[in-house]
Amino acid sequence: MSSRLIATYQVCCDAGAIEARARAIAVEQSVEMPVAAIDDEYVRSKIIGRVESLRDLHHGRFEVRISLATESVGCDPGQLINMLFGNSSLHEDITLHDIETPDDLAGVFGGPRHGMDELRRRVGAQRRALTCSALKPQGLPAEKLAELAGIFGQGGIDYIKDDHGLANQAYAPFTARVAAITHALRHSGCGARYVPSLSGDLESMRRQIAVAVDAGIDTVMVAPMIMGLSNFHRLVRDHPAIAFVAHPALGGLRISPVALLGKLFRLLGADAVIFPNHGGRFGYSADTCRRLAQALRENRQSLKPSVPTPAGGMSRERVPEMLDFYGADSMLLIGGALLETRERLVEATSAFVAEVQRHDYG
Amino acid sequence: MSSRLIATYQVCCDAGAIEARARAIAVEQSVEMPVAAIDDEYVRSKIIGRVESLRDLHHGRFEVRISLATESVGCDPGQLINMLFGNSSLHEDITLHDIETPDDLAGVFGGPRHGMDELRRRVGAQRRALTCSALKPQGLPAEKLAELAGIFGQGGIDYIKDDHGLANQAYAPFTARVAAITHALRHSGCGARYVPSLSGDLESMRRQIAVAVDAGIDTVMVAPMIMGLSNFHRLVRDHPAIAFVAHPALGGLRISPVALLGKLFRLLGADAVIFPNHGGRFGYSADTCRRLAQALRENRQSLKPSVPTPAGGMSRERVPEMLDFYGADSMLLIGGALLETRERLVEATSAFVAEVQRHDYG
Repeated sequence: MSSRLIATYQVCCDAGAIEARARAIAVEQSVEMPVAAIDDEYVRSKIIGRVESLRDLHHGRFEVRISLATESVGCDPGQLINMLFGNSSLHEDITLHDIETPDDLAGVFGGPRHGMDELRRRVGAQRRALTCSALKPQGLPAEKLAELAGIFGQGGIDYIKDDHGLANQAYAPFTARVAAITHALRHSGCGARYVPSLSGDLESMRRQIAVAVDAGIDTVMVAPMIMGLSNFHRLVRDHPAIAFVAHPALGGLRISPVALLGKLFRLLGADAVIFPNHGGRFGYSADTCRRLAQALRENRQSLKPSVPTPAGGMSRERVPEMLDFYGADSMLLIGGALLETRERLVEATSAFVAEVQRHDYG
Repeated sequence: MSSRLIATYQVCCDAGAIEARARAIAVEQSVEMPVAAIDDEYVRSKIIGRVESLRDLHHGRFEVRISLATESVGCDPGQLINMLFGNSSLHEDITLHDIETPDDLAGVFGGPRHGMDELRRRVGAQRRALTCSALKPQGLPAEKLAELAGIFGQGGIDYIKDDHGLANQAYAPFTARVAAITHALRHSGCGARYVPSLSGDLESMRRQIAVAVDAGIDTVMVAPMIMGLSNFHRLVRDHPAIAFVAHPALGGLRISPVALLGKLFRLLGADAVIFPNHGGRFGYSADTCRRLAQALRENRQSLKPSVPTPAGGMSRERVPEMLDFYGADSMLLIGGALLETRERLVEATSAFVAEVQRHDYG
């Protein structure tokens, strides 16, 4: 490999200082020592980060594009984020705004194994958006969560995921939860896929995948920023039959959502990526959401598309507008707004599902 | 367990909206659904986050203290950070300002195995600060890094760590690096400890530890935020003879350095914690550094003290002032400023070491 990785930062800085600042970032993110003290020709010509361009964004903000040697990533996703933002994340006035990974890195990491087409195929959907809901609140025993899953299943939801707060707590341990929920779904006779949330270290996640596979599960949820990107990618590589839904928890670094959730999560193999939709409980703008969805789906380096999964305070009333916005290549996730209908949960779920199914382009 | 975990957030918000906002954070970080739709008595009384207090910090900022059920952590460090800041990290106007972990969680996670006393004992230091330097730049072959290590060793450095950019790149693969550097240090006859940086997923880190142990190494460096807190703690638990130096890379979340590096890293077992000293290349204030060092060392829940390791653009000239500031229970890390002395590296290293050794309180 002799390609370059491009990191684009936004930096708050005096105009007079930005050139030196840009060079300092290039050094910080590569050799992290005084350049004058480096003799080695290979390091000088290849490894030291290069300021490729500098742009005034006005109001004291600048865009700095820096290229880094792909060799310095060493084919490790953890080292990739370390090279992109390891030390610079500690600077409050620097945001990692965008990343461009060269084709050879796309080949190394591979992107989603399954993506849109396979997630549709698994639930027998034609060319329509997929539906998703969440089992919560945490604190309920496995049986109560299983009851909820049964109702969502009856209502026709495609993917029923654990709330990302369900880990391996004593009140609903992973193994008991998987057993109860898969039993309830089989019993209801629906085709819904249960998507359990994995937690703990890599080895505990491997054990959880084994439990899930034994129960007939083929889709799981993980939070890549909590488990570490290297561990995320290790699971993707080692479990080719499993589809991975990525949750954004702890994703609030000073990294743009488009770069982190849209580009990096896809590159490392997320088949679907959950993110906060605009106009919900979180502050992402419509423009951010549009670009995030585009980054997940656009034709890039022969990576399969990931499924944009907008969420975070969505309701059935917003379904038509969300389908207009995201189109059919998406998964709509509604949790709390369904659960608060309480005794009318089956009807509310069915109405959500019917609304989405009306928009089938198959 | 029926204790409560306390998370203190700082929130930018209109005064009229802060009460509702505080309740919304308590819900987001616990049940993540409309509270009115929850019947279950256990969930209502225990699991839903509680706003314990609210304080006006003026200028549109508020301090919100929220308690969460320790049960919801399920003894998993990844789930701990998920409960503290998983979804709320996605809000740009919320900072996780402080955390208070109850005694039972301190018992579960255990803190440093070795800490200050053992890191001193290993290098035969009395009651003085420890010295540390870094092998860089990345891009050099293992043999050149080993040469540097030999010089640092001759100069009398206690701990010689890898630059955090040294992963498992082709130009100096982990195994070759460990072999070359330990050979050089044995050859130089000094008592310095080489501290290699681990990278990759949990299993690759385990293999790296095995290689290191075979080479007689007993101290390693990790970046807990890149590898994931659950995986960090798993290594600490499973390798009781190894001391862990924690690097802050990717630590620039909206979490205060005191809470993340000072409290969480120590709780999970970091024997020493590297952080950017004030007045260097990074923007931490003297007050932040003082509180960070205090959080690492203060008597708390019978956790051993971690060793504060200020770094990030330090020089020999600053040693007396740093020793005044941090005292003897610390490790001083100088990298680039030594390396830039080039042909005078042995002398510069010896002078740094002598300066620290003069301040021995033993």
